[in-house]
Amino acid sequence: MCGVFGAYSKTDCVAEEVYLGLMALQHRGQESAGVAWIDGCGRVNVAKGMGLVHEALDQDSLSKTNVTSAIGHVRYSTAGGSMIQNAQPICANYAQGPVAIAHNGNLTNLSDLRSSLENKGAIFQSTSDTEAILHLVAHQPDKRPLDALLGALERVRGAFSLVVLLEDGVVAARDPWGFRPLVLGKRDGNYYISSESCAFSLIGATLVRDIEPGEVLLINENGLTSYRLDSKADRGWLCSFEFVYLARPDSVIEGKSVYKARQEMGRKLARDAGGEGCHVKGDSGAADFVAYLPDSGTTAAIGYAEESGIPFAAAVVRNRYVGRTFIQPTQRVRELGVRIKLSPSQDLFAGHRAILVDDSLVRGTTAGLVVSMIRECNAKELHLRISSPPVRYPCYYGIDTPSRGDLAAAKQSLDDIAASIGADSLSYLSKDEMIEAIGLPGDRLCTACFDGCYLDGPAKRMACASCGNS
Amino acid sequence: MCGVFGAYSKTDCVAEEVYLGLMALQHRGQESAGVAWIDGCGRVNVAKGMGLVHEALDQDSLSKTNVTSAIGHVRYSTAGGSMIQNAQPICANYAQGPVAIAHNGNLTNLSDLRSSLENKGAIFQSTSDTEAILHLVAHQPDKRPLDALLGALERVRGAFSLVVLLEDGVVAARDPWGFRPLVLGKRDGNYYISSESCAFSLIGATLVRDIEPGEVLLINENGLTSYRLDSKADRGWLCSFEFVYLARPDSVIEGKSVYKARQEMGRKLARDAGGEGCHVKGDSGAADFVAYLPDSGTTAAIGYAEESGIPFAAAVVRNRYVGRTFIQPTQRVRELGVRIKLSPSQDLFAGHRAILVDDSLVRGTTAGLVVSMIRECNAKELHLRISSPPVRYPCYYGIDTPSRGDLAAAKQSLDDIAASIGADSLSYLSKDEMIEAIGLPGDRLCTACFDGCYLDGPAKRMACASCGNS
Amino acid sequence: MCGVFGAYSKTDCVAEEVYLGLMALQHRGQESAGVAWIDGCGRVNVAKGMGLVHEALDQDSLSKTNVTSAIGHVRYSTAGGSMIQNAQPICANYAQGPVAIAHNGNLTNLSDLRSSLENKGAIFQSTSDTEAILHLVAHQPDKRPLDALLGALERVRGAFSLVVLLEDGVVAARDPWGFRPLVLGKRDGNYYISSESCAFSLIGATLVRDIEPGEVLLINENGLTSYRLDSKADRGWLCSFEFVYLARPDSVIEGKSVYKARQEMGRKLARDAGGEGCHVKGDSGAADFVAYLPDSGTTAAIGYAEESGIPFAAAVVRNRYVGRTFIQPTQRVRELGVRIKLSPSQDLFAGHRAILVDDSLVRGTTAGLVVSMIRECNAKELHLRISSPPVRYPCYYGIDTPSRGDLAAAKQSLDDIAASIGADSLSYLSKDEMIEAIGLPGDRLCTACFDGCYLDGPAKRMACASCGNS
Amino acid sequence: MCGVFGAYSKTDCVAEEVYLGLMALQHRGQESAGVAWIDGCGRVNVAKGMGLVHEALDQDSLSKTNVTSAIGHVRYSTAGGSMIQNAQPICANYAQGPVAIAHNGNLTNLSDLRSSLENKGAIFQSTSDTEAILHLVAHQPDKRPLDALLGALERVRGAFSLVVLLEDGVVAARDPWGFRPLVLGKRDGNYYISSESCAFSLIGATLVRDIEPGEVLLINENGLTSYRLDSKADRGWLCSFEFVYLARPDSVIEGKSVYKARQEMGRKLARDAGGEGCHVKGDSGAADFVAYLPDSGTTAAIGYAEESGIPFAAAVVRNRYVGRTFIQPTQRVRELGVRIKLSPSQDLFAGHRAILVDDSLVRGTTAGLVVSMIRECNAKELHLRISSPPVRYPCYYGIDTPSRGDLAAAKQSLDDIAASIGADSLSYLSKDEMIEAIGLPGDRLCTACFDGCYLDGPAKRMACASCGNS
Repeated sequence: MCGVFGAYSKTDCVAEEVYLGLMALQHRGQESAGVAWIDGCGRVNVAKGMGLVHEALDQDSLSKTNVTSAIGHVRYSTAGGSMIQNAQPICANYAQGPVAIAHNGNLTNLSDLRSSLENKGAIFQSTSDTEAILHLVAHQPDKRPLDALLGALERVRGAFSLVVLLEDGVVAARDPWGFRPLVLGKRDGNYYISSESCAFSLIGATLVRDIEPGEVLLINENGLTSYRLDSKADRGWLCSFEFVYLARPDSVIEGKSVYKARQEMGRKLARDAGGEGCHVKGDSGAADFVAYLPDSGTTAAIGYAEESGIPFAAAVVRNRYVGRTFIQPTQRVRELGVRIKLSPSQDLFAGHRAILVDDSLVRGTTAGLVVSMIRECNAKELHLRISSPPVRYPCYYGIDTPSRGDLAAAKQSLDDIAASIGADSLSYLSKDEMIEAIGLPGDRLCTACFDGCYLDGPAKRMACASCGNS
Repeated sequence: MCGVFGAYSKTDCVAEEVYLGLMALQHRGQESAGVAWIDGCGRVNVAKGMGLVHEALDQDSLSKTNVTSAIGHVRYSTAGGSMIQNAQPICANYAQGPVAIAHNGNLTNLSDLRSSLENKGAIFQSTSDTEAILHLVAHQPDKRPLDALLGALERVRGAFSLVVLLEDGVVAARDPWGFRPLVLGKRDGNYYISSESCAFSLIGATLVRDIEPGEVLLINENGLTSYRLDSKADRGWLCSFEFVYLARPDSVIEGKSVYKARQEMGRKLARDAGGEGCHVKGDSGAADFVAYLPDSGTTAAIGYAEESGIPFAAAVVRNRYVGRTFIQPTQRVRELGVRIKLSPSQDLFAGHRAILVDDSLVRGTTAGLVVSMIRECNAKELHLRISSPPVRYPCYYGIDTPSRGDLAAAKQSLDDIAASIGADSLSYLSKDEMIEAIGLPGDRLCTACFDGCYLDGPAKRMACASCGNS
Repeated sequence: MCGVFGAYSKTDCVAEEVYLGLMALQHRGQESAGVAWIDGCGRVNVAKGMGLVHEALDQDSLSKTNVTSAIGHVRYSTAGGSMIQNAQPICANYAQGPVAIAHNGNLTNLSDLRSSLENKGAIFQSTSDTEAILHLVAHQPDKRPLDALLGALERVRGAFSLVVLLEDGVVAARDPWGFRPLVLGKRDGNYYISSESCAFSLIGATLVRDIEPGEVLLINENGLTSYRLDSKADRGWLCSFEFVYLARPDSVIEGKSVYKARQEMGRKLARDAGGEGCHVKGDSGAADFVAYLPDSGTTAAIGYAEESGIPFAAAVVRNRYVGRTFIQPTQRVRELGVRIKLSPSQDLFAGHRAILVDDSLVRGTTAGLVVSMIRECNAKELHLRISSPPVRYPCYYGIDTPSRGDLAAAKQSLDDIAASIGADSLSYLSKDEMIEAIGLPGDRLCTACFDGCYLDGPAKRMACASCGNS
Repeated sequence: MCGVFGAYSKTDCVAEEVYLGLMALQHRGQESAGVAWIDGCGRVNVAKGMGLVHEALDQDSLSKTNVTSAIGHVRYSTAGGSMIQNAQPICANYAQGPVAIAHNGNLTNLSDLRSSLENKGAIFQSTSDTEAILHLVAHQPDKRPLDALLGALERVRGAFSLVVLLEDGVVAARDPWGFRPLVLGKRDGNYYISSESCAFSLIGATLVRDIEPGEVLLINENGLTSYRLDSKADRGWLCSFEFVYLARPDSVIEGKSVYKARQEMGRKLARDAGGEGCHVKGDSGAADFVAYLPDSGTTAAIGYAEESGIPFAAAVVRNRYVGRTFIQPTQRVRELGVRIKLSPSQDLFAGHRAILVDDSLVRGTTAGLVVSMIRECNAKELHLRISSPPVRYPCYYGIDTPSRGDLAAAKQSLDDIAASIGADSLSYLSKDEMIEAIGLPGDRLCTACFDGCYLDGPAKRMACASCGNS
């Protein structure tokens, strides 16, 4: 997963706004960040670095960069090692001038494309599939850049939500299947493109609309011009996991509030849990309170508490000062583990029957550690509730999920998972209820990680075991 | 406000545990951090630096520091400038050997002590009042260190929760009035002292008990030995603001859960608000939801929602990646202000009647900015509810409150504050209800910031206007 | 100017040796540094960063990188801005696998190559001409990498001393004109390639021989295999400025000691200066001492003093602690200027007649500032002696010389230069004497910066005025 | 060894000049640096940090610090560990106001003073003896600061060259024995105090005179006022090692040029070496050239070459880019050792007979490593010449010499040292000749490290074996 952001203005310098927009998308990627623009000589420039936005980039110098169009990217740490070469935007000058691309998603016909491009002399300087798009553009040296881009995008398959910077303007493009979100915002006469609408609030802009699946939108001094990719899609494939976990709760995707979707997932989960004679609401009566894993489980737990009438409690505390890289993995730290970041309140759990809500259960590692800490607090009962279906299949469209072998639900029964985690009971939301909670028709959503139903059937991402590169 | 931590073991190296303990107390101070120990030569050593614990200290080298006793400190940024000289623990070697002190609190008879000490030749290398305690110890060169410490503490007035490191052992001391919390924890045979019990969870220890007001507790190879300061206190003065805002919700102070106190404050606030014909629950019916300022207002809002039956909503989102020092105050950033850190969900507020809960209202600046952002989201009504009484007086016992002129409630009526903030209504919790919510008798609590009732009457802290030092 | 280094071993890990080798070549480039290797999956990896070797690279992690072949590069800061994208080695995976290139030199037919490549779909991600070589290799997708490299090198014109990393082994290549030095070293069974032999001492290796102009040397498990580029060269063009200034004095190039060449330049300069009735050795007798600009003028000054019999004096002191980036250009610092780095000894200059030797005079800025400081020391006379001919033409083969307008000797007479610098007299070494001092035949040396005689006639490097990129 | 600097102006801000002055004194200490001033509230402020001046201090903020008096200090790394607490200036506020002290030297009656002070209640927050002076001042709370300082300095014994900052002005003080240099400089109406005159050049000031032994000089709006300590000295004890090694060659101490002293030491050494039938100039004729260890041996080697008529050669090259902390001590680096920093020119040494000059031989470690590298270059003969007498005794007056056991010359004969180092011959300069070369009478110089003749007889510095603190 990654985040992309672009800005176009007729008059204002926008490089710092791209920086700020990336800060609002920081949850979509913490490995690297970059901002690209075209300088007065018609050459593409890029500032990029490893780490969080404020570590990777120099806000001060961007605030002084005198350009009215710019794009940016935050990259998620995936297998294969973090390297500055993989940081985006990827930029190049080619026969028709400068081009910079920031990409959220994953191409699925990369290996075919790559062989074909390499046989024509292309070199790949990163392990990112985004570079292939750049080559496809460059291999149409006689076409105008926008036409070459349209031609290139017709040939790639998979997930792409792009912002592209050309001399002609800022371009937003979304694959015909609409895997990843991409939205258009506006403030005064300026236009913004973002992976999520939450970035608009930060810079004082408002959401105009989603970039539509298969749409390529050019923004320049002539305003907005919309192009269409020749659609190969007979249905939509918007990632349902964006609603479950990835997106920020204050974002709105295809008209649906992420917050309300999560809240409704929690509500439905409560109804299910109660309905099937679950002892929490059954003979033994309701639990004492609904806790959650901060921050991923918060919104669903609010819905669960509301629906069940069981009190809501912030009973697991997250240490806000313990970040990504602050703790060295010494012997003592390994012993203490997740307790350095998350702390259940002894005071609340002791002697009580609690429900613990989280948004999803992938490997199950963190949940298991927290449950065992709650056990040490002498909780009487602890029931784990997951506000999405079991994750049983890897994602090939832009999320760095583990291979099947590491997915807790891929091979184990619910009872086995509950037992290994140490919960008194475990239940998930059904796929249909999740879809209902999101509020979009099921045939507009991708649910492959839950049901294995991929756009291209049972695709395989063949990754090198040691380096993680496909 | 500051945080102190100490560790004593017969066998284990503890310097890294002090580091980790300080991480759990990081909310009590972000200006500087330090860890002190006595080396094999009987000399006191200290590692300290500016910034957060992980910035100021080198965990790796502490994990290799071979000592079985150590103390630490995190310091809150106060007026007067941040200087490495003010970082604690303050350490010295004097006639009877090494001594290191970490102090949470503020002495009120400092200027008298200081004159008297300076007239005997004392030099002050910091602007911290803690140094005075060290001098009082050293000016009894013939007494054993512990006796000198007891003698020194008899002479100081004001708030002190201390951990002190002597060759004799680790000492915990709390002033006779009990202004600031201080607790004893245990894990296997090791003892820990902490400003708050939340630090015990992080290192796998459990809370044993509070250090009592006026108690001086020596921990060494003979176990625990308790001493008593000659009590000048006829009642307790435990800071009620610890329950309102300062302490972490998973801490327990004098037997009372901070979480439950805050939740009960929210409940009582809801009862009040409903009881007096407030239009939110009056003719116009209840509000649509209860929002809060994250993270300070969370727990009270949970109680408010529970009691009022109005749905609870995480409607203001905090950007977890925008920290203390990450944003340069460029022109654009000044325009955007608090919106870079806090973002109200347009989606939830638009067209709705909302209650916004926060724990306290000091200057009112942040609340005002958030309310105006909520207004831009087209909220129909916005009612601000504060789960503590109006802050009308400065604190002289360890919190860096602004001078009276900057306290919103010091000179303005509630209606004026509401108007200037832009809220449709504003109400506070009463002092008596706050005390009830905490669950301790009123004569064990200091409520001076609310009622001006100071231990020593209307004391004055005379600070230099330009440097902030008293 | 840049420095390149490569290492091949059958058994030893060599990445750290490349790091250390680059340290010995640090004088050839301080803008960025990088090390590349091929990992177990057959993919090329690279660590690179901005700044000095120890800033840009992590020695510790390189010392743990388990590879027996690696190459490295240090880059000189040139016009056009420092960017991480320009840091080398440039690495890519193409149809035939991985390739990494580190380049010292400058191609002169770049614009032709670039147009042709771009028209075939090539994209340029840096502003470096090295990338063109990579594209030329990749555009022969059916050939084995070494053959493709040989084919590519036949097509480029200009200066290149390369180390290339292929799956087949480490390759050293030098252009047919031999503009830049490149040497082969050995330690036990390991082979090393370096821009200069001084790097061999540092790692305990010894100089075997120069890579010959037009030679392409493959080093792998079969030992050394030498290939020849189809020579287009009827004479040699080894850069004479390497002997004057660029190379470290303990290096040996094409069998000639840089130290001895410089010393002999100084000797000849002394003979000239004495011979033409120069007042320093004429009627008014010899000067009191021979001073020099440290460190560039040291060796020539030694020769000058030796030959003239005038005492040698270290009369200008360089502050060894004032490095590249240590001083902020505040108002006061701008006033003080070069005096922060260089300090003439008042004690030695006052009342004396001194000769000041430097290796070359390009812009004349530093010399002018030092001369005026020496004047403030009340020197009686100050005679500037330059141990190379006037620099009148820019270099197109790898040195970042200023444009003609900024070359002091391009438009001014000697007397005018002396006057503007403030020296009582100024003399240069003649081109013929410089060539004699080097000890190689004149038709093996490039002297274009002195005489404008370029390989390809009066070539023009057309650089964009604002970005410096050609 | 340390460096001190002070500046006084009626009108100009001087904090940045102190910063720049410290840069010129950086060779006197690289462990820490600090600058102190008195703020508008009459409180002493200090910026200090670990490392080189540019690492420890923020030039930018000092350039904006609006004060017309300031003092600074660079500290040498000594045994006992580097700690920020030991960084100077040491600052305090006491009964009579603010005081800051920067100290070069070492007190010899510290343990007596310390016991006496501790018995009066003093606390020592550092392991530096400078703090004792501060306490002595503060223990005269009724006297004006300058009088208290005079009183304090009457009581201390040993080496002190101080700059002190009081509300009354900037004070320079030098012990009655004059162990360490201290000089007064001037630029326009501003006065400067510095350990060495070389710092004056950097800021454009000129040397006025030395602060005399036993002089205390007050600089304020009344100009210069000189006081005298009650002299306990019947002769001078100016450190001769300042002329041998410590001071920068462009400094002048007590009227004597350091450069000329070193040059003359080299000349005398050449005469000696020649005079006693040494084979280098004896039957076997003169050596081929005079090399030196850069930079310590440079000036003496110039004198040696001049006197002997043997050519001077820069035959050992120092890597200017390998600094203090740049190389991690990996296995490979330990194998390569000093060769990473120093590189003998194979080309010059091979087959030749060389003299290697260094200024002094303390442990002999570096000399030994360089000699063995020269041997690997196939030098025919290598004769080591030291331009000072054998160092046989530790220094108690401010230099961090090793204990006697580690001094090469303390227990070994010359022949044994030569053998262990691997030189064909070794000779030293005699003490009398060194004194002649310096040009001051022997009874004005301390030569204790050479002859064991200490001010207070065979004093002993009793240091803790593990922590190095006395």
